[in-house]
Amino acid sequence: MIGDDVRLADLPLREDLRGKNPYGAPQIDVSVRVNTNENPHPPSPALQADLARSVAAAAAELNRYPDRDAVVLRTELANYLQRSTGVPLDARNVWAANGSNEILLQILQAFGGPARRALGFEPSYSMHPIIASGTRTEWLACPRRGDFGVDVAGAVAAIDQQRPDVLFLTTPNNPTGGALTPDDLRALLSAAPGMVVVDEAYAEFSTVPSAVELLGEFGDRLIVSRTMSKAFAFAGGRLGYLAAAPAVVDALQLVRLPYHLSSLTQAAALAALRHADDTLATVRRLVAERERMAEALRAMGLSVVDSQANFLLVGGFADQGAAWQHFLDAGILVRDVGIAGHLRISIGLAPENDEVLRVAAELAGTPDRPGTGAIRSTAQQSSTGQRARESL
Amino acid sequence: MIGDDVRLADLPLREDLRGKNPYGAPQIDVSVRVNTNENPHPPSPALQADLARSVAAAAAELNRYPDRDAVVLRTELANYLQRSTGVPLDARNVWAANGSNEILLQILQAFGGPARRALGFEPSYSMHPIIASGTRTEWLACPRRGDFGVDVAGAVAAIDQQRPDVLFLTTPNNPTGGALTPDDLRALLSAAPGMVVVDEAYAEFSTVPSAVELLGEFGDRLIVSRTMSKAFAFAGGRLGYLAAAPAVVDALQLVRLPYHLSSLTQAAALAALRHADDTLATVRRLVAERERMAEALRAMGLSVVDSQANFLLVGGFADQGAAWQHFLDAGILVRDVGIAGHLRISIGLAPENDEVLRVAAELAGTPDRPGTGAIRSTAQQSSTGQRARESL
Repeated sequence: MIGDDVRLADLPLREDLRGKNPYGAPQIDVSVRVNTNENPHPPSPALQADLARSVAAAAAELNRYPDRDAVVLRTELANYLQRSTGVPLDARNVWAANGSNEILLQILQAFGGPARRALGFEPSYSMHPIIASGTRTEWLACPRRGDFGVDVAGAVAAIDQQRPDVLFLTTPNNPTGGALTPDDLRALLSAAPGMVVVDEAYAEFSTVPSAVELLGEFGDRLIVSRTMSKAFAFAGGRLGYLAAAPAVVDALQLVRLPYHLSSLTQAAALAALRHADDTLATVRRLVAERERMAEALRAMGLSVVDSQANFLLVGGFADQGAAWQHFLDAGILVRDVGIAGHLRISIGLAPENDEVLRVAAELAGTPDRPGTGAIRSTAQQSSTGQRARESL
Repeated sequence: MIGDDVRLADLPLREDLRGKNPYGAPQIDVSVRVNTNENPHPPSPALQADLARSVAAAAAELNRYPDRDAVVLRTELANYLQRSTGVPLDARNVWAANGSNEILLQILQAFGGPARRALGFEPSYSMHPIIASGTRTEWLACPRRGDFGVDVAGAVAAIDQQRPDVLFLTTPNNPTGGALTPDDLRALLSAAPGMVVVDEAYAEFSTVPSAVELLGEFGDRLIVSRTMSKAFAFAGGRLGYLAAAPAVVDALQLVRLPYHLSSLTQAAALAALRHADDTLATVRRLVAERERMAEALRAMGLSVVDSQANFLLVGGFADQGAAWQHFLDAGILVRDVGIAGHLRISIGLAPENDEVLRVAAELAGTPDRPGTGAIRSTAQQSSTGQRARESL
């Protein structure tokens, strides 16, 4: 094939990218996919029909560029946030992009970049340092406590010492599941000398109030990032958004690529928002399943971090790589996030969760059934498994 | 509204962004839109129906993330390029993103960035320096000749002197319309010490062979960027792509945001590719209209740069700002690209082009009808017009 003789090492790639691997969870065809925190409920038939109609209408004008500022979509996103938080918001408070990754990229292009620094509390969403690197923003990692919570007093001291230009707070936190309280957020926001990104990708699964409620108080620095991927079951549609002061949205318009959001994306996201009540009903079912799973896994002797999200960080595996493979061999794809002894498991449909529990019981070794996972060594893993787990 | 008290100047914006305005052509509701080089032909009814069916099918799984590597779409894009250039290509030679702007961003993230430099020949596509700036790549602008062609010998000397990490060649060039020959490209590629991006957004409108044909010879540096916005009448769908050596595609996967291309975008673009023959028939009609327009405008005494694209750069206006306003007052939106005395006019449908010619004749002052445009001063422009022309 053309260009097969050209090797990556011979290209004038940036030095900091040499030897790196692309980010990405494995996309393996299995019967139970609980590795990327998707909503397992497909869109309702009514939403599918509405979306198809809306996109068909948009298709008639597909030769024309989309509304560059996506004003109608931003208005409806503002209405949704206002309904769910009680905070008065309009389109000028909201910005939207192709997934929250692009939102975060634009934030770091505007407020980070060379000679600037971003700080986050790890383990957390692994794209934060990757996107920082992609904008040449220096990344400062502060460790979380042993129970994966943020030590707020210690965090405030770290912020005072490091003076980051951009502070990342993930709540509920991925991959651990815990949430920061409004008091925690207030303390961290008060300490921050620069912009603060509160990544609320999993907010709808949490009973803790949203940071949106703090926008009136901290509008000069607070950006709340959201996604439609999880609660709205819209991972394939790629729609991330944020709430902030209008001036923050103005700043992002200086770095966004023009026409970044297609007419089809805008039409589809609007359809999804029209069916928000239906879709968000699945969130309540997932929360109930989460609690059922947590209880059952704990009863097996596994440790489960309290979660306000649609996944559980489960500990107590002697070798999480071997346990990951054991799940995969049973047709279940879970996530090895690189925390020793732990796996992250998304909440699926009830029968999928039953299947996860069945295999977890094999690994945990319940009284009536001895465990098998702990005795598996990494040397026994298939090469597929090794490749698949390379990147988080 | 929340955050209305926060001013952009008070935010910790990057210093190089302060005082800038967002890029963007005005989006004004007029009867004749010939300002953004869209294909004026809407998608065929058959394509619209196919697209609606495809997107409806994708909607059933919208709760799941898209194929992160868009392999099926890249295969079909490779097939299309192979059919149109005769060069053997497969999915590993092709990468796709949300518009060619995102393609260019990823190229500069991988091969440009801080302490690296990109060089282009201006006037050209004004997003090139903006995207360079967004990645903190230093931009070096070399002027074109007075007739807007590239002085190849002078360009080679400039490349030898400046040693740019990334060289941008736009062919056919926007906003001027001329194309580089394969010999021109070969000379410039041979001189380039780094990567060379040949931006072929308008390739389908040109009779000059594509740079894709040079991939066998220059696979270690050549990237050919394309878009479905123009010839494929897919501006609203946002699909840019490139052809290069597989190692270049590997490099871009190190910087791309995961799941950047939605399931809907992938499904819609595949539908558009299935109807390529129908859509590309509109290209031939637009080329015929372009030649009719060029002849008629020249007959009015206006100057027209020879064009291989779907637009004309028209000169001879005493005051292009006043002429722009005169067109707008007549319900026609053309583009003031900041070249004294010139306007860029996209080729529309035949009745739209007739309307453009009617108004151009008023401005040119044909023998039987004295011109009016030249006497309009910028002070008389409406504030809408002034705002609308602020950014190119």
